[in-house]
Amino acid sequence: MDKINLESTITAYPMPVSLVGAHVNGKPNFLAIAWFTMASRKPPRIAISLGKGHYTNPGIKENKTFSVCLPSEDMVELTDYCGIVSGKKIDKSEVFDLFYGELKTAPMIKDCPLSMECKLVEMVEISLNEIFIGEIKGIYTEERFLTDGKLDFRKMKPLILSQPDTSYWSLGEPVAKAFNVGERYKAKRE
Amino acid sequence: MDKINLESTITAYPMPVSLVGAHVNGKPNFLAIAWFTMASRKPPRIAISLGKGHYTNPGIKENKTFSVCLPSEDMVELTDYCGIVSGKKIDKSEVFDLFYGELKTAPMIKDCPLSMECKLVEMVEISLNEIFIGEIKGIYTEERFLTDGKLDFRKMKPLILSQPDTSYWSLGEPVAKAFNVGERYKAKRE
Repeated sequence: MDKINLESTITAYPMPVSLVGAHVNGKPNFLAIAWFTMASRKPPRIAISLGKGHYTNPGIKENKTFSVCLPSEDMVELTDYCGIVSGKKIDKSEVFDLFYGELKTAPMIKDCPLSMECKLVEMVEISLNEIFIGEIKGIYTEERFLTDGKLDFRKMKPLILSQPDTSYWSLGEPVAKAFNVGERYKAKRE
Repeated sequence: MDKINLESTITAYPMPVSLVGAHVNGKPNFLAIAWFTMASRKPPRIAISLGKGHYTNPGIKENKTFSVCLPSEDMVELTDYCGIVSGKKIDKSEVFDLFYGELKTAPMIKDCPLSMECKLVEMVEISLNEIFIGEIKGIYTEERFLTDGKLDFRKMKPLILSQPDTSYWSLGEPVAKAFNVGERYKAKRE
């Protein structure tokens, strides 16, 4: 079939949704973002890309800390609120019940099934965005999100964003085991 | 409920699965990765994090081009194969039917519902990884993945990876409209 060049500036892949926490002007603030990725494993580091104009950025630069919190489906309304409303205009410090780990300026959200506290290790300017790379100092969850001691996506119920149509989606069903299902094809080629 | 610090080096969030294409030693090669994110919108740039030891990295550095191709569920076996087997040992140039856009060394996969060709603009070394940031020069799809001219996740059927249990998942159902559902909470607070 013929390929079409979309000539779009927005790509379409399933983006994980997170709430980035930081202390800004001395108060906790949260921003909903879907542009982040693991950057390295040892030590564990995560990269988040924020538009330069966000209220959050100066707070991360000042304290050199931030958090990445994964909301569940039932938090969709509050999550979206943190994507709609800027901390420049509205104080979001009371939206969630918070907790802290070893970093005292990386606020995390009690209701989130997973929260990571991060220490800023690098910043990269990319056009109108700033990429903050943080070393993960703690990963917090609760017993109720685990099965046999491991995080269970069925219990976490993470949110996924689609662009450019901008919808939140749930996770579906397991398709196959990774680093495993490809063995079939490997065997065929050998 | 009490928070548990997992003290893990692997986080658990729904990661989009992609096949990164590059010319290495003059031949197309593909590597399955789930560590990538959009980096900026204008111009559109995408960041991929690759372990330093991969066969792909020198090819990207040499040609200053790469692709990010989104496989669909029915490509799970071949996708996983490209995560299991290194180009150092096995020639993967014949695994997929390929096409090219304006960049002649960014091979893309015909069967993928979405493929992006990228020009390398920046490299960042992070511990044992290299982050390659590419400017997206073309985004390719086919009519059969569109609804009303827009990419349709139900037709694309993207793959999502979970870590640390390493399974591939399908996308689920729409939960809510983004940049919209939060208006309810906003109205309540005003």
